[in-house]
Amino acid sequence: MIRVGINGYGTIGKRVAAAVRAQPDMSVMGVAKTRPNHEAMTAVDNGFDLYAAIEERRPRFGEAGIDIDGDVEALVAQSDIVVDACPSGIGAENAAMYREHDTPALLQGGEDADAVDASFVSRANYDSVEGADLVRVVSCNTTGLSRLIAPLAESYGIEKVRATLVRRGGDQAQSGRGPINDILPDPVALPSHHGPDVNTIFPDLAIDTLGLKVPATLMHTHSINVTLESSPDAERVRDLLAGERRLFVIPEWLGLDGAGAIRELAGDAGRPRGDVWENCIWGESITVEGRDLYLFQAIHQEADTVPENVDAIRAVLGTAGAAESIRRTDEAIGLDAALTGSRT
Amino acid sequence: MIRVGINGYGTIGKRVAAAVRAQPDMSVMGVAKTRPNHEAMTAVDNGFDLYAAIEERRPRFGEAGIDIDGDVEALVAQSDIVVDACPSGIGAENAAMYREHDTPALLQGGEDADAVDASFVSRANYDSVEGADLVRVVSCNTTGLSRLIAPLAESYGIEKVRATLVRRGGDQAQSGRGPINDILPDPVALPSHHGPDVNTIFPDLAIDTLGLKVPATLMHTHSINVTLESSPDAERVRDLLAGERRLFVIPEWLGLDGAGAIRELAGDAGRPRGDVWENCIWGESITVEGRDLYLFQAIHQEADTVPENVDAIRAVLGTAGAAESIRRTDEAIGLDAALTGSRT
Repeated sequence: MIRVGINGYGTIGKRVAAAVRAQPDMSVMGVAKTRPNHEAMTAVDNGFDLYAAIEERRPRFGEAGIDIDGDVEALVAQSDIVVDACPSGIGAENAAMYREHDTPALLQGGEDADAVDASFVSRANYDSVEGADLVRVVSCNTTGLSRLIAPLAESYGIEKVRATLVRRGGDQAQSGRGPINDILPDPVALPSHHGPDVNTIFPDLAIDTLGLKVPATLMHTHSINVTLESSPDAERVRDLLAGERRLFVIPEWLGLDGAGAIRELAGDAGRPRGDVWENCIWGESITVEGRDLYLFQAIHQEADTVPENVDAIRAVLGTAGAAESIRRTDEAIGLDAALTGSRT
Repeated sequence: MIRVGINGYGTIGKRVAAAVRAQPDMSVMGVAKTRPNHEAMTAVDNGFDLYAAIEERRPRFGEAGIDIDGDVEALVAQSDIVVDACPSGIGAENAAMYREHDTPALLQGGEDADAVDASFVSRANYDSVEGADLVRVVSCNTTGLSRLIAPLAESYGIEKVRATLVRRGGDQAQSGRGPINDILPDPVALPSHHGPDVNTIFPDLAIDTLGLKVPATLMHTHSINVTLESSPDAERVRDLLAGERRLFVIPEWLGLDGAGAIRELAGDAGRPRGDVWENCIWGESITVEGRDLYLFQAIHQEADTVPENVDAIRAVLGTAGAAESIRRTDEAIGLDAALTGSRT
């Protein structure tokens, strides 16, 4: 049984905690939180031991009527590995603590690639992180791009990727984020950080990315062009992608016109928090002109790296190979119950 | 066992179907849908028998690979009662079919009060609908107002209610609805229909309502003023409301600043689809100036009438009294596991 500590119980941490708990070969030793709020409350209600991430603030939990099991160092000490899901930048600050306890840790995609030994996407470089001390599970967008790039590169070869990332402004509960009525080139100067970030996974890939932010909270949407080294017809590409785990090729008859409908389907299918772990690729959008492949895909920014975090635990500790881990992760969280059932 | 048919499996129908199935004294005989889409698919995936709401369109389900168990009339014929959750106006058109089969039916709040024998809110007039043929479970806003008005009227007497309803423009998947960047007085001329609609529940209540629409999808928010006939202090009002079922008085320390955070909490608490069945009243907003009570409450438009639909089944068929039905409904769907746990 792999003993997993979760430092940070926000958007990513709470989802990873639930996904880890669902794995038969893993056990959540506890979760750490900086302050008592509704997420601290549901951590306890969901049966997780709760640790104070900042020792000085520990009394505030008691004042709110929330029991604390100890400070975060105690959590790290009893864990075989820690998933750090703290806000961007804090993960790198925590690295010294993990090293002190000789405990490997997974950081999230908001941390600099320089701060870690390796970056990780299950489908692309699972085998490369075994034994690493600090591994970065790359961001939602980089994960979504990498899952798509891997099978295309293997089957057809890739000359160049060009991607426009139309990103949600904030998550559902982030009431302070914008824009509220604009379409922001972000950053205005090319490339956005996403291309170089994908190069932490595929070092030799030619990729240019452009980013924008819009008033939306549900998912990001990517407009993708991949210049291939061969010219498959669109049907073959569609079948290739539909045969991949964690890629959901949306059939037209489902009537999913945008992120709202996709998240609605996920909620109707009983997914926790209406989460979508897969890339959602509109089947009708898959088009090949010469060697140029085009498609749209939507990425649920809060959820798509969750299965990758689970896989990264096994990858770092060397307890399972890539295919086995991906299958186990997906079965345990219910990703195998594809959103389209058996009717695609 | 009460045999319940659900005609319409959209926003309300799918939620009512799940809530009815959770009741030990009820059984869902099937659900009817006009066309194959992602909701028809999840109806089948969730184990409901599926009926075609429009006979001529039945072949389209087969073309999409979805099995149909019959036409809606067959569903009505085998049901003791039907919950009609069709779009506004269709429910009234369906009334003739229900009468023909001598099957009582519940319509939703989008139908005219004139089209039915009685309007219904569990907390206010449960006992008045026994034996009725056609009952209207009033709209989300009217339900939310009525749940608040009932205890205030009983405890303090009400001289007048004045309410401004800041309404969401559309639901999550309604990508065609607006506004996208405006605040629309809607309707501009007073009163909005909500006040008269509340009078279908409280005929003698003095109430004026104003409605607006804003670019939001998660919940409505009401700004409420109630001129009472006495002058309780705010703490007493707060305790009164916190002691009511289906009213969730939000404590400050939870850090819930808006609908996004409330829905996030509901998802974290494991509520299906992140649903909030309760009125969400900000505790800090409860203020009394002389006899004037003020507060803000948020209403999840997709969910708050769901427990009322379940209660209305028992109320119409006379199988349980109000208090017993409300308790049974809430226990079966998990509403009793209040969002704040035991720490308020």
